[in-house]
Amino acid sequence: MKDKTRPTPLVEYSHVRANTQAMVECLDREDMAIQTMPDVSPTKWHLAHTSWFWETFLLQEHLEGYVEYDSNYNYLFNSYYNSIGTRHARAERGFLSRPGLEDVLGYRRHVDSAMERLLRVDQDQDFFTIEPLLRLGLAHEEQHQELILTDIKHVLSRHPFGPVAFPERLASISSAPEALASWIGFDGGVFAFGIEDAPFQFDNEGPSHQAVLTPFALADRPVTNGEFAAFIRDGGYNTPSLWLSDGWGRVEAEGWRAPLYWREQDGEWLEFTLHGETVPLADAPVAHLSFYEACAYAEWAGARLPGEREWEHAALRAAGPDGCFALPGFSAHPAVSTPGEGLRQMFGGVWEWTRSDYAPYPRYRPAAGAVGEYNGKFMSGQYVLRGGSCATPMGHVRPTYRNFFPPQTRWQFSGLRLAKDI
Amino acid sequence: MKDKTRPTPLVEYSHVRANTQAMVECLDREDMAIQTMPDVSPTKWHLAHTSWFWETFLLQEHLEGYVEYDSNYNYLFNSYYNSIGTRHARAERGFLSRPGLEDVLGYRRHVDSAMERLLRVDQDQDFFTIEPLLRLGLAHEEQHQELILTDIKHVLSRHPFGPVAFPERLASISSAPEALASWIGFDGGVFAFGIEDAPFQFDNEGPSHQAVLTPFALADRPVTNGEFAAFIRDGGYNTPSLWLSDGWGRVEAEGWRAPLYWREQDGEWLEFTLHGETVPLADAPVAHLSFYEACAYAEWAGARLPGEREWEHAALRAAGPDGCFALPGFSAHPAVSTPGEGLRQMFGGVWEWTRSDYAPYPRYRPAAGAVGEYNGKFMSGQYVLRGGSCATPMGHVRPTYRNFFPPQTRWQFSGLRLAKDI
Amino acid sequence: MKDKTRPTPLVEYSHVRANTQAMVECLDREDMAIQTMPDVSPTKWHLAHTSWFWETFLLQEHLEGYVEYDSNYNYLFNSYYNSIGTRHARAERGFLSRPGLEDVLGYRRHVDSAMERLLRVDQDQDFFTIEPLLRLGLAHEEQHQELILTDIKHVLSRHPFGPVAFPERLASISSAPEALASWIGFDGGVFAFGIEDAPFQFDNEGPSHQAVLTPFALADRPVTNGEFAAFIRDGGYNTPSLWLSDGWGRVEAEGWRAPLYWREQDGEWLEFTLHGETVPLADAPVAHLSFYEACAYAEWAGARLPGEREWEHAALRAAGPDGCFALPGFSAHPAVSTPGEGLRQMFGGVWEWTRSDYAPYPRYRPAAGAVGEYNGKFMSGQYVLRGGSCATPMGHVRPTYRNFFPPQTRWQFSGLRLAKDI
Amino acid sequence: MKDKTRPTPLVEYSHVRANTQAMVECLDREDMAIQTMPDVSPTKWHLAHTSWFWETFLLQEHLEGYVEYDSNYNYLFNSYYNSIGTRHARAERGFLSRPGLEDVLGYRRHVDSAMERLLRVDQDQDFFTIEPLLRLGLAHEEQHQELILTDIKHVLSRHPFGPVAFPERLASISSAPEALASWIGFDGGVFAFGIEDAPFQFDNEGPSHQAVLTPFALADRPVTNGEFAAFIRDGGYNTPSLWLSDGWGRVEAEGWRAPLYWREQDGEWLEFTLHGETVPLADAPVAHLSFYEACAYAEWAGARLPGEREWEHAALRAAGPDGCFALPGFSAHPAVSTPGEGLRQMFGGVWEWTRSDYAPYPRYRPAAGAVGEYNGKFMSGQYVLRGGSCATPMGHVRPTYRNFFPPQTRWQFSGLRLAKDI
Repeated sequence: MKDKTRPTPLVEYSHVRANTQAMVECLDREDMAIQTMPDVSPTKWHLAHTSWFWETFLLQEHLEGYVEYDSNYNYLFNSYYNSIGTRHARAERGFLSRPGLEDVLGYRRHVDSAMERLLRVDQDQDFFTIEPLLRLGLAHEEQHQELILTDIKHVLSRHPFGPVAFPERLASISSAPEALASWIGFDGGVFAFGIEDAPFQFDNEGPSHQAVLTPFALADRPVTNGEFAAFIRDGGYNTPSLWLSDGWGRVEAEGWRAPLYWREQDGEWLEFTLHGETVPLADAPVAHLSFYEACAYAEWAGARLPGEREWEHAALRAAGPDGCFALPGFSAHPAVSTPGEGLRQMFGGVWEWTRSDYAPYPRYRPAAGAVGEYNGKFMSGQYVLRGGSCATPMGHVRPTYRNFFPPQTRWQFSGLRLAKDI
Repeated sequence: MKDKTRPTPLVEYSHVRANTQAMVECLDREDMAIQTMPDVSPTKWHLAHTSWFWETFLLQEHLEGYVEYDSNYNYLFNSYYNSIGTRHARAERGFLSRPGLEDVLGYRRHVDSAMERLLRVDQDQDFFTIEPLLRLGLAHEEQHQELILTDIKHVLSRHPFGPVAFPERLASISSAPEALASWIGFDGGVFAFGIEDAPFQFDNEGPSHQAVLTPFALADRPVTNGEFAAFIRDGGYNTPSLWLSDGWGRVEAEGWRAPLYWREQDGEWLEFTLHGETVPLADAPVAHLSFYEACAYAEWAGARLPGEREWEHAALRAAGPDGCFALPGFSAHPAVSTPGEGLRQMFGGVWEWTRSDYAPYPRYRPAAGAVGEYNGKFMSGQYVLRGGSCATPMGHVRPTYRNFFPPQTRWQFSGLRLAKDI
Repeated sequence: MKDKTRPTPLVEYSHVRANTQAMVECLDREDMAIQTMPDVSPTKWHLAHTSWFWETFLLQEHLEGYVEYDSNYNYLFNSYYNSIGTRHARAERGFLSRPGLEDVLGYRRHVDSAMERLLRVDQDQDFFTIEPLLRLGLAHEEQHQELILTDIKHVLSRHPFGPVAFPERLASISSAPEALASWIGFDGGVFAFGIEDAPFQFDNEGPSHQAVLTPFALADRPVTNGEFAAFIRDGGYNTPSLWLSDGWGRVEAEGWRAPLYWREQDGEWLEFTLHGETVPLADAPVAHLSFYEACAYAEWAGARLPGEREWEHAALRAAGPDGCFALPGFSAHPAVSTPGEGLRQMFGGVWEWTRSDYAPYPRYRPAAGAVGEYNGKFMSGQYVLRGGSCATPMGHVRPTYRNFFPPQTRWQFSGLRLAKDI
Repeated sequence: MKDKTRPTPLVEYSHVRANTQAMVECLDREDMAIQTMPDVSPTKWHLAHTSWFWETFLLQEHLEGYVEYDSNYNYLFNSYYNSIGTRHARAERGFLSRPGLEDVLGYRRHVDSAMERLLRVDQDQDFFTIEPLLRLGLAHEEQHQELILTDIKHVLSRHPFGPVAFPERLASISSAPEALASWIGFDGGVFAFGIEDAPFQFDNEGPSHQAVLTPFALADRPVTNGEFAAFIRDGGYNTPSLWLSDGWGRVEAEGWRAPLYWREQDGEWLEFTLHGETVPLADAPVAHLSFYEACAYAEWAGARLPGEREWEHAALRAAGPDGCFALPGFSAHPAVSTPGEGLRQMFGGVWEWTRSDYAPYPRYRPAAGAVGEYNGKFMSGQYVLRGGSCATPMGHVRPTYRNFFPPQTRWQFSGLRLAKDI
C-alpha cells in the first residue's frame, strides 16, 4: 500500500527537474554553450543529457507508446554508456552548436510530459518495477546540478574579465578569529560499513561489510582559507618533502601556487567565486584543492587525511547540528561553519578528500546491463571524497555516499578535514 | 575636386558592412560562438573584430569626441597587433561567452553611426588624410567576410550531423564531360610586377619592380574534382615520390586521403559543402587542398605550380570573359567554369596555390606603427595564393593581390592551376 | 653476540654485488648506454646508481676518511631523493655519454673496496648502527637487478632486428595440455597482516595490523599464455564492457591488442623474449600485462583480482613446494609451473597484480630524512603486485613484500592469478 | 684521356674517407651512440650511413661481384630515400645499440676496399659512367663531416657537465676593438645565376638562369658576437616589433634569450664550444642563430638579410683574400676574420642566412630514380644559407652552393651578414 505521507514520485520528480531549470536562469545563452576544458561540459549539454537519461532508461523501456524526441540525441547526449551505442567525443561537446537551447528546452518539456504520464498511469501497480530507476534518475540529475555549477564556474573563470553571473555578492564580513579546530576521538574495533537494501543508494555504497578501525581522531571542522594561507606563506608549495611524488610532479608541471581560482594581486590573495572576485574569507573552508594539495597540507600540519571508513564511522556517530546532512539547499560558495559541539560541516561545505582509493567494497558486483556502467568501471585511478559541498543539492547525500575524482582534480568544491592516529 | 561619378565613401562603407551582416543571417546564435580549431574564429568574434578595426584605426584617431563602446573590447578583439597592447589568446576566442551577440551587434551599430559622422563631416576637406585607412578598413572587412564563410564551414563540418546552414542546395546537375584543359603559352623576358600608388592596394603588393620570366604555359582553367579523383584512384596519396618531404610527412601524420571535407562512403566520395553533403561535381574546381597536395598533383600530372609572377603576368594579359576579376559576388561553393577563350576562372573559383613563398618584394618596407603589422611580419613559412575564391567578396581582389597561408592549410577554398615550362 | 652460522655481512654484500656484475656480462657497451623510454634507465646508469646508494647512505656517513669517487656523481646518479639535492632529469639518462663504462666500473670497485673496509673494521662494535642501512642497500641493489633485466629487455625489443643478447634459447617444447587451474578456498575472519621488527623489511610492509577478510578462493597457479590467448580470440580487446573505463581508454589510445612484446605474424602470436622471439608457451604464465589487462581478463573469466591481503594470507598458509619463496635464482623468462599440491608459483614466475592500490598501512609513517623517500612518497596512483618474477633475485622477496607500479605499466614481468568470493 | 695533373679518383676518395675517420678519434664509444634530439644523428650512424651511400649507389650497381656487408644495413642506414625501401625511424637512431662501433668500422673498411677495386679496375674505360656518382658521394660524405661536428656538439652540450671532447682550447685572447663593418656596393641589372655542367655540382645549383638585381650593398664581414650582444642588451629578445610573427612565437614558446649554446652566469654570457665553455670572442662571427634571430637582428640594425642571388653575385665579384673559398680545413669554432679589403669571411666562418626560401630554380627537374631524392623533395619550408662554416670541409663549397635549413634551426654554425638597398 502506498505511503500517503511522503511526496508522490511525480512531485519528487517535478521538484528536482525544476531545480535544474532554476539554476540556469541567470545564464546567457552563449554561457551555456561553451566548453573550456575536457572535464567541463556545456550547461546546454547537461540540460539535454539529464533528459536523455530519463528517456533512455525509463521512457523507452517502460512507457508504452513513447515517441522519442529526436533519434540523434542518443548519440549526442550519451555520456559514457558503451552498451547504449557509440557516442559523441567528450572533449568536443563544445562543438555542438545544434541543437540550440530552445530545442534542448523543448526536449526537457517533452520528457517531462512523458514522465508525468509514466508516473501517473498505473502508479500503484507498476511502481515497484520502476522505482529503483526513478531513484537513480533523481540522484543522477542531482549530481549534474552540482556539475552545472562547478562547470559554469570554470567557464566564467576563463573569461578575461570574469563576468558576474550570480546576483548576490559575498558579504565582506570581518569574521571573528576562528578558534583552532578541536579533535574528536574514536575507539578502534571491528565495525560495519556501507549500506544495502536502502530505499535508494548507489551500488557503490554496498554491500554492507565489516572492517577494522584503529583508534583515531577527526578535526571538528574542515581546514579553512586562513589555515591554508599559512601553509602557502610557510612555503608549502616549494617544499617537495611535504608532497607525494606525483603531486610534486603536478606542482612543477602546472605551476600550482595556491588553490584553483586564487590569484595574487599586490601581495594579496583574491578568489574567483560565482559572485565575483573577493578576498577569501579566513574562516570559510578552503575549496578547489586537489588530493595532492590536501595530502601536502595534512603532512605540513603533522596530521593525515582520514580513511573513507573513518569518515563514515564518525559521521554516523558524532555529527553535530551543523554537521548533519539536512542541507539547507545548495549555494554558490561554502559558508563559514557555525560554532558548536560535535563534528561540524560534515555536509554542505566542501567535499572532503579521503586517503582511500575508489575501489569496490568486498563482494561488490555492478548491475547487469547499461545501468551497471554507472559506477563500477570507474574504480581505478580515483580517490574518494565524502560529505558534500555547497553545490550539492539538498537531500542528495548521506554518510555512506562516495564521491570520487582523479587526484589532480580541482574544479569541484573540494577541501579536507584533518585526521590523526591516537 | 570630388569625383561625382563614383559612390561616396559612406555608400561604400555601408555596402561592405551590410554585406557582412547579411552573411550571418542564416546562422543560429550558438553557431556564431563556437571555435573548432585554433585557426578558426567564432563568427561573433569576426563581427566584433572588424568593428574594432574601424574604432581603433579611424574613430579613435580621427573623429573628435568619439566615445569608445567598451574599453575591454580593445583587449578582446585585437587580432595580432602587438603595438596596440596585450590581447586575448587566439585559441581561446571560443571561451568568450560575453559579450553576447546582442552586445556585439550593438557595437557594430555604435561604430557604424560614428563612421557615418566621420564620413559626412568635412568630407571634402579631410578625406585625403583618412582615405588610405578607409580603403584598408574596407579591404580588411572583406577579408573577414571570406573568413566568416570558411570558418563557419569548418564549425558546421565538425558537428556530428552536419546541419545545413545555407538555404540553397547544389543543383544535382549532370554536367557534360569537360574538355581537357588547354595550355596558353607566354614568352619570356624582363617584365614589371606589383603595383604602387594605386587608389588602394595592400603594402605587400608593392613596390613595383622588374623580374625575369622564362617561357611558360598556364592551363586555361583550374584542376577539377574529376581530375583530382583520378589522382586519388591512381594512388596519389600512397606514392611518396610525388610529394615534397614535408608534405609526405603530413600525409602520414594526418592520414590525408582526399581533400578536406571529402569522405568515402560505400566506395563513393562525398563532399561536405555549406549547402550540405553532396557528390563532388566532376567539372567544378577542386577545393580545400593544401600546398603539398597541389604540388603532388602537379608532379603526378607532369606539370608544376606557377610562380606568383607567372600567374600575375598571365592574368593581366590573357584573362577571358569568365576569367576577369569582376566577380558576381561571393557564393558558398565554387561553380563550374564557363567554356570560352583565354584563361578562365582566374578569379572567383578557388584560390590558386603558387610555388612562391610569401616574401617581401625588392625594397619593400612595412608602414610605421601598428598598421605596419598588417602584412610584413607574416612573411615567413607561408606560400602565396593568387586569384580569389567563391567566398571572396566582389571587387576585393585584383591581379596583383597576394593571399598567403602556411603550406598545410586546407580550410580555405584553395585549389590549383597547372603550369609548365615551354 | 655475533651469529656465527650465517654469512658475514661482507660475504652477503659481495655476493649481491657480484650478481649485478654477472648480469651484464653478455651485453655490449652500447647496449648499456641506451634509454628507449622515460621509464627505462640505461644499464650503465643502474650500475652507477646502485653504487651511489652505498656511497651516499653508508660510506659518506659511516666510514671515516672516505673520499668520494667523483663529486659530480651525486648529481648524475641520484634517482629521486630530493633531500640529497638536485638531480639529473630521468628522461635524459640516455644523454649521459660520460662517464663511460670503464669509469662506472671503476666507481663500483672504489665503492666495493671502501665497503669492504667499512664492513671489516670494528664490525662487532658498530654493526648495530649500520645494519639496517646495509640491509636496505642490499634489497635496493636487488631491486635494480630486476630492473636491469626488464629495462634491457625493452631496449633490445626496440631494435629493429631484435638482437639476441642472452645465450640460452627457449626449448621449443611441446608441453602436455595443462589441467585447468584449481581453486583453493580460505575462510573469512579478522587476521594480522604486514610485518615489523624483522631482520630486514621495507617500511611499507609495516606496521603489522589487523583487517577483515571474507571467504575467498585463489587459483592454484597464475593465468597462462594459453588462457590469455583464448581471451584475445574471444574478442577481449574489443569488448569495452570487460574493461575499467581508464583501461579501455588505454586500449584505444595505445592500440593494445595483446601483451607487450607479443606480435602477430601470419595469424600466429610471437613473443619477444630475452632469448629471442618465440611462440609463447601455452602453459607458462602470461607476462607483461598492465593492471587494466589483468582486470579485464579476470572479468572475462567470471572472477576478479585478489586483494593484496588475500594474497598475503594465502601465501603464508597454502604455498606448495613450488610456491614457496626459496627461488632458484633469477632467469630471463617465466617457466612452466610444476604440477603439485597447494598454491603453485606464488614466487618466481610473474609479479601478480592485486586489486589493492598502493597505500600506507594503518599508522604507517615514513622514516625521517632522505631514506624516508624510499617508499612513502610514491603512495598514490599505483597498484600493488605480490609474489616476484623470474627476474627477481633469489631471496629478495617474501609473503609481505609489496611491489607497486602505475596501472598502465607493462614492461615488468607482470601477470595475474584469479580470485573469487565463496 | 686522363688528366695526369689532378689527384686520381682513388686518392680523392681515400682522402675524404680518412678525414671522416680522423674527426671522431677524440670521441668515446658512448659519445658516438647517443641521440639528443630528432635532428641529431649519432656519430656511429653517420659513419655507417656514409658507407651505405657508397654501397647503394656505386658498389651494388657498378662493381661486379660485390657482396654486401650486411643485408640489414640497408634498412638501418638509409636516411630518407623512399625509393630504396623502408627505413628506420629518424628519431630512433639512438636506439640502435647494434651494430656496435667495431661492426660499423668493419663496414667502412669493407666498403673502402671494394671502392678501391671499383676505382682501380678499368678506370679509364668506365670512369665516365660513375664519375658523377663519385663526385656526389664525396660531396655527400663531406656534408656529413659537418653534421658529425654539429651533432656531437649538441650531444656534448646536453651533458650536465659539458665534457671537453676536443683537445685545443680557445686562446683567451683580448682582441683589439673591431672596426665597424664597411658596406660594399653593387649595381643593379640582369645577371646570371647558378651553375650547370660543372665537373661537380649539386642539382639544386642549376639550371643556370637570369634574374634581376636592384642596387644593394653587403657588409664586408659577418655580424660579430660583440654586435649581437649589443642587440641582446638593447632588449632585442623582448621587442616583438623586430620579429617575424613566427619568430616571435618561437621566442615565447622556447624562451630564447640568446643564441643556442650561450648561457648567462653572474651577468656574463658564456658560450659552449667544442673546446669547452668560454667567453664569446667579441670579434668572432656570432653563430648558432635561427633565421628568425638573424632577421630580427637585421631589423634592429636598420638593415636586412641579403637575397641568395645578391650573396652569390657579390661572392663572385668581390671576395677578398680572406673571403675566398680556399678554406684552410674545418675547425671546431669560427675564428676572428682577418682585416683586409673586399668581402671577408664569405666562406669558413659561419653559414649565412639569406632571405630566400629554398625553392627550385627556373626549369629545375630532379634526377630520375633514388638519387633524385637528394635535394628536390626538400624544397619547402626551408631557407637558404650561403658560404660555409668552420665545420665545412675544405673544398666542399663554392659561390653557387645552396645550404638550407628550416627557419628555427640553431644547431648548425649559422650566422648572418647584413645587406641593404642603395
